[in-house]
Formats: sequence, structure tokens, C-alpha cells
Amino acid sequence: MQKKDKISAGFLIIGDEILSGRTNDQNLNFLAKNLTELGIVLCEVRVVRDVENEIIDALLALENKFDYVFTSGGIGPTHDDITSQAVANAFRKDLILNEEAKEILYQYYGQNNVNEARLKMAYLPQSASLLDNPISSAPGFKIKNIFVMAGIPKIFQAMFEACKKDLRLGLKIFTKEIKINLTESIVAFDFANLQKEYPDVIMGSYPFDNGTSLVFRSTNQILLEEAMQKMIAILKKINFDSILKIA
Amino acid sequence: MQKKDKISAGFLIIGDEILSGRTNDQNLNFLAKNLTELGIVLCEVRVVRDVENEIIDALLALENKFDYVFTSGGIGPTHDDITSQAVANAFRKDLILNEEAKEILYQYYGQNNVNEARLKMAYLPQSASLLDNPISSAPGFKIKNIFVMAGIPKIFQAMFEACKKDLRLGLKIFTKEIKINLTESIVAFDFANLQKEYPDVIMGSYPFDNGTSLVFRSTNQILLEEAMQKMIAILKKINFDSILKIA
Repeated sequence: MQKKDKISAGFLIIGDEILSGRTNDQNLNFLAKNLTELGIVLCEVRVVRDVENEIIDALLALENKFDYVFTSGGIGPTHDDITSQAVANAFRKDLILNEEAKEILYQYYGQNNVNEARLKMAYLPQSASLLDNPISSAPGFKIKNIFVMAGIPKIFQAMFEACKKDLRLGLKIFTKEIKINLTESIVAFDFANLQKEYPDVIMGSYPFDNGTSLVFRSTNQILLEEAMQKMIAILKKINFDSILKIA
Repeated sequence: MQKKDKISAGFLIIGDEILSGRTNDQNLNFLAKNLTELGIVLCEVRVVRDVENEIIDALLALENKFDYVFTSGGIGPTHDDITSQAVANAFRKDLILNEEAKEILYQYYGQNNVNEARLKMAYLPQSASLLDNPISSAPGFKIKNIFVMAGIPKIFQAMFEACKKDLRLGLKIFTKEIKINLTESIVAFDFANLQKEYPDVIMGSYPFDNGTSLVFRSTNQILLEEAMQKMIAILKKINFDSILKIA
């Protein structure tokens, strides 16, 4: 398949427990890093409550804007797990018993141990396809350009591995970083001019306790290197010893 | 001021560094916990890039839906810090030199050390009022029902302290938790029925490695206690030794 210059993604985190502060989300940073590795640009994230119309609104908004949407949370066996139903309703699909998901539950728990609650997990929107999940039986699934995954980090991570084979890869995003012992305001003027000179290299400035990280990101490695070398020359003029680390 | 039954909030996280995975956001969980403490319900979070129209769209959407909006990131001195300009444009305000913010920068750095980049931080939307910031000179500000804060966690946290005096408090949200050594599917049916019986108590089920946390949340402490006692009785019937901890 042809590579698009830019593949975009949105991420929808579903769960009261994140918004109440009970649970500290760990999936955003994992997904962000892994998508960046694949040349896919994570453009927007939303976190919503376990409320069907809020899930549907956010899902449709993200699906409309980006090449891929990932979701986390709400696919378990209890009454507050309403993601599958919400996804079905968002796309006017029936929620039906997925035979493959049922078989996996039967094999995992033994047929006699699959009660009504567990079987609920096998009800998926019509035309959904399962995501492999090697570490539990919870059925994540793909429908359209949407990957519906579990909220528990280790299951989310395993399911993301299963998504990979369905993802078109974007151009690799190269990153370089210059750490300096100067506060960011000292280099702000030159850094802004350099950004104007290299619009295809995204430049960000991030202060830390004793200095600043200047970050360069681009799919064009030559421009990236060129911009970075110019910044290094500028920094050496400001103060020859200002550079702590280049990585 | 009269207490509303429910005070709602949205949170807008601004920054490429979160979406690329470079930085692991720490402000969401802090804000979620602290708002819950104040009886304010955090209903939605969005993370957007350092792109003006994306910031504006998200800000207006959240401002329209919730009593308060908090933002993090993008108020520093460099070219990628565009939050103040975006907020001004969102509400058709001019971005003007705030004399109070300028004075704070002069006092913090010394007048001769406030270069153009640093002074940029003192340009705020017209009619914005400053948030106290005891640990740096970065000017967070309030405009309408929006609190614009720094992305660096320790500064974000200090600024949140300054917001508190402007927040109406909601009814306290009480939380109780029963940890059990049963998988959630075993209690799912009874737990769902209990949720139907107590619609004013929000009940959530969260699996962990060797069991499940059943969480009860409500502004009504009497109903909360009643629902929890019923669940305890149910659990003891299922298996007398199923309860690991009540907190």
C-alpha cells in the first residue's frame, strides 16, 4: 500500500476512573510513543465519562478527523462497560454475539464458567473483527478505522501489538534534541527565526530545572540535521559551553 | 454564593510534546483528584497540538459545555507557546501588555534581563486577571470561566492553588471501595442490579491482578453507605471470605 506523507490518529480514553483521579492513565504515553515510532501522528486525545452519548459524540468527532482512532476502556463484563454498545450505536450497527469471541471465552474459562456477564463481552458491533489478545480473553475489536481496546495497560499494550498489522505506516518521524544550560528566553528569538526558515521541521522548547531542551522533529532527515547544525552554531556563539548534550 | 448540586469542569492539555510521547502528562491526574476533593466533576479532557485553530476549537467546545475550563501548557516565552494568543482570538480579545504581569517579570528577573521573549509572556488577552504564581514568574491567568496555566507540573500545581479562591465548590463527592478476591464477572449481575436500585450512587468495577475493586461514589453519604452495605451482604452470601478490604 502506498505510504501517505502523513497518517493521523486520535485516541479516546473512556472511563470515570480517569476523570475522578482514581486511576492514573498510562495508555496515552505508550500509544503516543508507539505511534510516533510507526510514523503515525497522534493529533488529538479525548477523555470522556462512561456515558453513552458522550462516548458517541467524541468517537464520531475523532473518526471524522483522523485516519485511525484508538479507544481504551469499557469492554469488560460489568454494567459500567458500555463501549461496545456505544460504538455499535455510533455507527447504527446491531450489537450481536460474535461466535469467534464466544469460542475464545469458552476456551479460556471453560464453557461452564462463561456466565451471562462474561458472555456479554462477546457481544460486538456487527462487522467488527477481533483483535488478538494473547494475555486475556477480553475481546478488543476493529470496526471501520477504529480500534477498540481494553483500559488495563498490559492488555492495551498487547492489543496494540495486534493492531499493528492493520496500520498503514507513515514516513518515519526523526527526532533530535539539544540540551542546553540556558533558560529558553535567551534562545527564543533565534530559535523562532530558525523555525520560520525550516517550516518542515517542528521545533519545540521545553524548560527543565537547570536549562532547556530544544527538540527538532521532521520526516526529512536532511532538513532536520541542517536545522540542528545551524542551532548548534548559534548556541556556540551565545556561549561556547552552553550545550550539555545532543541526542 | 449558593452551591449548585453539580459543578462541572473540562481540561484542555496543549502541547505537541504530550502527543509525540516525549512528555508524560502529570497534570490530568493531579487536577482530577483535586477537583474531586472540591466537589467539582471533571467531565472531559482534550489534548491538542500547538496549533492555533485546534486550541481554539477545543477551548470553545469545553467552555460551552462546562462551568470551568482549565488549560495547561503553551504560556512560555518561545515561538511554540501560543496559548495566550489562541485564547485571545477565541474570544475576540486583543492581546495586550498586562502591566501587572510586566512588573512581576521586572521584579523576578531584574528590568535589564527582561528581553523581548520574556516580555512576550506578559502579553495577555484584554480583561484577563493574573493567577498568583509563587514559584516562577510565568503569568497564568483567568478569563471568563477559563484558567490558563503552565504545563510544568510544579507550576501547574502552584497555579491551581491560586485558582481555588475563584471556584465555587460543589457538594462533596464521597467515595467508598470494596476490594474482593473475585473476578468481576461473578458479581456483575448483582452489582448491575444494585446500580439500578441506586441511580444516585455511581458504581464502577475495576479488575486488578487478583481481584476486583468495587467503587461507590455519591454526594449522598446515606445512600452511599446503604448501597455499600447491601453489596457487602451480597458478597458474603457469594463467598464469606471474598472481601479483602473496605476503604
